[in-house]
Amino acid sequence: MIGRALPRASAAQERLPKYQALPILSSDALSSVAYATEAALGVLVLAGSGALKQSLPITLAIIALIVIVVLSYRQAISAYPNGGGSYVVARENLGRNVSLVAAAALLIDYTLTAAVSLMAGTQALSSLIPSLLPHELLLSLLLLALVGWANLRGIREAGRVFSIPTYAFVVMILVLTLGGLWNLSFQHGWTPETPPVEAVLQPLGLFLVLRAFSSGCSAMTGIEAISNGVKVFREPSARNAQETLLVMGGLLSAMLLAVTGLGFMYGIAPDAKVTVLAQIGMRVFGNGSVLFWMLQLSTLLILVLAANTAFAGFPLLAAMLAEDRCLPPQMRWLGDRLVYQNGIGVLLAVSAFIIWICHGDTTVAVNLYALGVFTAFTLSQLGLVLHWWRLRGPGWQGRIALNALGSLTTFMVLVVIVISKFAEGAWTVVIAIPLLVWGLATIRRRYREVQRSLAPNPQMKPLFLEGKDHSPEHHAIVWIAGLNEPSFEAVRYACSIADRVTALMVVDDQDDAGQISQDWDRLVGDNTGALEFKLLESPFSSLVQPFCEFVVEQERHNPGQFTTVVMPVAVPRDRLDGTLLNQRALNLFAALSAGGSRVFSIVRYYIPPAGEGRDGALAAWTEGVMEPDHA
Amino acid sequence: MIGRALPRASAAQERLPKYQALPILSSDALSSVAYATEAALGVLVLAGSGALKQSLPITLAIIALIVIVVLSYRQAISAYPNGGGSYVVARENLGRNVSLVAAAALLIDYTLTAAVSLMAGTQALSSLIPSLLPHELLLSLLLLALVGWANLRGIREAGRVFSIPTYAFVVMILVLTLGGLWNLSFQHGWTPETPPVEAVLQPLGLFLVLRAFSSGCSAMTGIEAISNGVKVFREPSARNAQETLLVMGGLLSAMLLAVTGLGFMYGIAPDAKVTVLAQIGMRVFGNGSVLFWMLQLSTLLILVLAANTAFAGFPLLAAMLAEDRCLPPQMRWLGDRLVYQNGIGVLLAVSAFIIWICHGDTTVAVNLYALGVFTAFTLSQLGLVLHWWRLRGPGWQGRIALNALGSLTTFMVLVVIVISKFAEGAWTVVIAIPLLVWGLATIRRRYREVQRSLAPNPQMKPLFLEGKDHSPEHHAIVWIAGLNEPSFEAVRYACSIADRVTALMVVDDQDDAGQISQDWDRLVGDNTGALEFKLLESPFSSLVQPFCEFVVEQERHNPGQFTTVVMPVAVPRDRLDGTLLNQRALNLFAALSAGGSRVFSIVRYYIPPAGEGRDGALAAWTEGVMEPDHA
Repeated sequence: MIGRALPRASAAQERLPKYQALPILSSDALSSVAYATEAALGVLVLAGSGALKQSLPITLAIIALIVIVVLSYRQAISAYPNGGGSYVVARENLGRNVSLVAAAALLIDYTLTAAVSLMAGTQALSSLIPSLLPHELLLSLLLLALVGWANLRGIREAGRVFSIPTYAFVVMILVLTLGGLWNLSFQHGWTPETPPVEAVLQPLGLFLVLRAFSSGCSAMTGIEAISNGVKVFREPSARNAQETLLVMGGLLSAMLLAVTGLGFMYGIAPDAKVTVLAQIGMRVFGNGSVLFWMLQLSTLLILVLAANTAFAGFPLLAAMLAEDRCLPPQMRWLGDRLVYQNGIGVLLAVSAFIIWICHGDTTVAVNLYALGVFTAFTLSQLGLVLHWWRLRGPGWQGRIALNALGSLTTFMVLVVIVISKFAEGAWTVVIAIPLLVWGLATIRRRYREVQRSLAPNPQMKPLFLEGKDHSPEHHAIVWIAGLNEPSFEAVRYACSIADRVTALMVVDDQDDAGQISQDWDRLVGDNTGALEFKLLESPFSSLVQPFCEFVVEQERHNPGQFTTVVMPVAVPRDRLDGTLLNQRALNLFAALSAGGSRVFSIVRYYIPPAGEGRDGALAAWTEGVMEPDHA
Repeated sequence: MIGRALPRASAAQERLPKYQALPILSSDALSSVAYATEAALGVLVLAGSGALKQSLPITLAIIALIVIVVLSYRQAISAYPNGGGSYVVARENLGRNVSLVAAAALLIDYTLTAAVSLMAGTQALSSLIPSLLPHELLLSLLLLALVGWANLRGIREAGRVFSIPTYAFVVMILVLTLGGLWNLSFQHGWTPETPPVEAVLQPLGLFLVLRAFSSGCSAMTGIEAISNGVKVFREPSARNAQETLLVMGGLLSAMLLAVTGLGFMYGIAPDAKVTVLAQIGMRVFGNGSVLFWMLQLSTLLILVLAANTAFAGFPLLAAMLAEDRCLPPQMRWLGDRLVYQNGIGVLLAVSAFIIWICHGDTTVAVNLYALGVFTAFTLSQLGLVLHWWRLRGPGWQGRIALNALGSLTTFMVLVVIVISKFAEGAWTVVIAIPLLVWGLATIRRRYREVQRSLAPNPQMKPLFLEGKDHSPEHHAIVWIAGLNEPSFEAVRYACSIADRVTALMVVDDQDDAGQISQDWDRLVGDNTGALEFKLLESPFSSLVQPFCEFVVEQERHNPGQFTTVVMPVAVPRDRLDGTLLNQRALNLFAALSAGGSRVFSIVRYYIPPAGEGRDGALAAWTEGVMEPDHA
């Protein structure tokens, strides 16, 4: 289902030219054009349709923010040419604990990116095909499953194919803008339409404008992707990345302005059934026209690609955190397809949960979105300030000033978002970030504690015996389920490793204990040596419990000796055999773990295919060497 | 959730007087009054409302059948005073293979009893409270869960409490009959009402009457319960059981006749929303009256009790089949509460499935019902014929004649049911019985095959060595996940049991192999003895695979030696520790099982509570005895 195992060597990454790196690394940022304007309008409309024109100044403010953040990250690239994500920058400059805040914010962000992008993609599709509207939740989950599956298979970032959706979307927004300008100039005229009258639910105050601004800030997600991915660029990679970042910032600003401007001119109000972008598309291209289809499909594709970047980023960050001992080591496991399958699995589960509780509606999730983004922005810019201060290379004052400005601005925006969006869901993130930080820190502490308790004792060098002949008394207790060949095999093994062997059989009140003892004597003979056969009757239905009690008892009464519990296991040829064999190895292992016993040996007996000779490997093995002890 | 473990001794069964045994053993039979008439009417109504009066002759025919079957089973009791279920009687008289047919029929029957009774109980409830109608499926499943839970807890057949529902139902039917007679005599008059006109869908032919008769035969389920449960009666148990059986037969016939008769007089037609019994109750007692409530609630209770008898019978039969090696031994496991929990679990799952596919509607399930019942009847009567023939005690001719009549009659009915109900679902049972028989026979054959292949070889007495000093070369391969105390503990153990020890560590390309080797040398010293340290680099992401390949390689190259794989496992203090430890013991065990290696030893290292001393039991154990081999 996910393909055959790949050798490690195939993981090497190819370097990309700028024109291929741009679409791959900026799909997340550029795709936000599909929902950011809509999010801002969705808040403004509460103050009636007259308030919708406030989207223009809000968009200009967001563009100013984009300029500051892009210039700040341009400096991050020269500081960390191997890729300076917020987590790495914060860890290097602000210390372990602050870096965990950045990590928590980023983990939340990646999850929301996946969820929001796929929900917005579904909305783009259902704006095109209204009959899909009732199935939006299901569609979003299907898209999520598709992206998750592709990533579990280990999608290679195939530059050429992956650049198509981004360029297609950029081109379609350009065509939309040109078409809109032509229409406004020669047909429609430059008088803005009044949006359809909406009831005024709230007065248009500063708070509402700030809330709309906070929603619009979801446009800024994904800007840091290029500074994370410097290594993807061809040499000189830092320089190439910086240039690409500027191009991306320009494109994002222009597209945002175009969409907001056209929306204003056409007097478009947000609608639960048709996205703002689709409404503009219908006005400019006409509903059902080929260009409208192309606009919506390219929107869907770039949003799926944006979700895919979350599937690239989240597992990588989780693996980095596992490397730093802040997440369980399972997050570092590379699957057979050389992907961090556990990270992908967690992301899949959490974003499916978010889509499900949002019922496929982006509004709430977008509210939460910007919060994590701006936390990460603030921390990484702050880290850079300290970085430049430590280095104090040429021009350090200017660099510090720029990053300080970036950090301060994004922090102020962060405060605005927390306050204005608190009641609308931001409180969940305000709670989730400290919880996540606490969890990451706890894992780190516990991990070090466990490692310390496992460390070899420096005072006592490992004592390796010169061979088994010198070791002290060793008692083996063998689980006997019945007088059959697997049991005898286990007894043989026990005799070959231990000084004293107890073959212990637990019976219930329906078994004939006398008969069993007789059978043992007949099969084994009087064994006066170190081998003892013991029958226990269980007063309860459990046969495992009396066995464990016997083992614990033996260990307590003979503190000087070492005990091995030997469990015979017949290996079934198939599932039916397995059911019929009725073996309790795992039960016994679990029960003994609680009891404190130390060594548990499983002696396997391979059931021969019907008609072939029996197995009895240890018997055969000793046959040539030993005489039977009762001939 | 299911209560604390019970000692085996508490399983002893108390003997009951007749008046307590009757309600417990006949709830299944008597409760069928709640749906049998309805099932017959449901077929007749296809020929229009005029055909409904045919229910009277059909009921008389069923009563004649009841008389024959009751008298036949009366003889079964004297033949098998320890309880002669159809399976036992068939096994003793007709051979193993025919008995499996009886077993399959009974297993299907018990499942249908549970499903049909609970669905009919729900219908009784929703006839009383119509607002429950849309939730019938859910209600049936809830009742099933309740009965299943009570049985998993190990409900004791508490005579007094359990007799209430049955007697309450019998009394309510009596009150209904008397009330109906009074009403007919003094108010309504003795002219039968014409049922509301229904469209005629089919002509009233012999085939339709036979179909109605087949449906009505669902009244006969549960008659064999008393002959199964002879042991429940006080001495003289056979005689008491026989008397009780006659009383039960009389009650069943009378109640059936009363319900059918009243239904005829009031011109009642089947209705999907209100049961026939509830319609009669409304006419006689008035809708909403206390007596009507009591009628419906006692119907619900006796039907739940009837489902409960299936939960008593199915696991017992499954355990008996497991004892005869026809089902996996798990069916014989007594749980901590001394119940056959696996049998209960299977019954729960299958009857939930039936309720679910029937959507809580009894019609189809009742059609299948009678088929299994009559298969079991026929086989058990036939077995009794052979039983009497073999014995030929006093009056054997009469006994043979009676059982032969019973067997022949029930066989004819069986043929009628198969033919008339084939298209209505009986085909599923016609397919299921041979399939089940084939399954039971296969398990039996495979079980014997497996047992044979495990049997100790009579030619070769078990060779138990006189102690470990005499055993031949033994190679231990230790899984090293890191240079920590659990690993050293495992190496110590390996050294104490084997002649040659390989400590094998698999690394990936990110590990520094040179550093690890140096650390080993520093910690262990140059060990020139039988202990060898080996590093393998894995070309794939799996670390387990190269280890297994090494083990298999070693076994192939040294056929004369015996290999033990030693796996260190640190026992975590809690779940978080467990996650962080990142241990792959189960992966390795599974992978090695495929490879054919023979002994797998788990050496446990108990992580000490924080702040306490380290564990290193084997080190401590050897300390007093041995000098370190590199001081």
